[in-house]
Amino acid sequence: MQETRFDTPEATEAAFYQAIAGIDLDLMTRVWSDGGHALCIHPGSGLLRGKPAVIQSWRDIFSNSNPPVIEYRYIDGYGTGDIRVRLVEERIRPRNTPPDAANRVLATNIFLREGRSWRMAVHHASLPLVDRTEEPAPEHRLH
Amino acid sequence: MQETRFDTPEATEAAFYQAIAGIDLDLMTRVWSDGGHALCIHPGSGLLRGKPAVIQSWRDIFSNSNPPVIEYRYIDGYGTGDIRVRLVEERIRPRNTPPDAANRVLATNIFLREGRSWRMAVHHASLPLVDRTEEPAPEHRLH
Repeated sequence: MQETRFDTPEATEAAFYQAIAGIDLDLMTRVWSDGGHALCIHPGSGLLRGKPAVIQSWRDIFSNSNPPVIEYRYIDGYGTGDIRVRLVEERIRPRNTPPDAANRVLATNIFLREGRSWRMAVHHASLPLVDRTEEPAPEHRLH
Repeated sequence: MQETRFDTPEATEAAFYQAIAGIDLDLMTRVWSDGGHALCIHPGSGLLRGKPAVIQSWRDIFSNSNPPVIEYRYIDGYGTGDIRVRLVEERIRPRNTPPDAANRVLATNIFLREGRSWRMAVHHASLPLVDRTEEPAPEHRLH
């Protein structure tokens, strides 16, 4: 497999979502950290530790999927030195469905610089079931 | 309110869970970042941005709760410079219930150093519904 260099955390994140959109396991494998600390929590799921378990989970997901439509929006983040944290809102839906059919997912993505490339080290995704990100004040929640 | 100094991310995290166990809003307020970037996702909920919204959510939670039993276990993490990432498994249950009544929660906690103290900047919590953290390989999942 060819070594891929991602110059910025943003480039790594874009490749991560491109891999999902293209159900591209090779690209997904190149996105993730080789440093032994890959951690992934799919929505509603438990913790996957280590790159082999993480990549196997994506293999399972991709083998049962058609390429979806996925969009993501950066919300907020932090960065210092060789680590970046990015909170994003994802919207994912099957192709040929309208935008309002999309599932919203909130994800905390964490990137580490490994040598000259940034890699994904953590992807923690969850489904917001009871309120909407656009309404941050608790008194506006639906419940 | 008295200024509280947390010398390490671990001390801040311990205070965070102590605040939950004691439904102690004052301590919870001192735990969180004053830097304008507080982000909190409660299990199954949307994103709360900014310390006022985050603290209001804890006020709502504490005002409807008795002090629970909460335990947490560090799983893995990262750190560099003024930022630390800690993934933890929480187990929370009402007092006077057996340990196996606990709800498991997976949380990504992120801490920033602000001046001489470490503060919580991100708490992203989710309920694993379909598998167990102890079984990282996808072929062992229940679904």
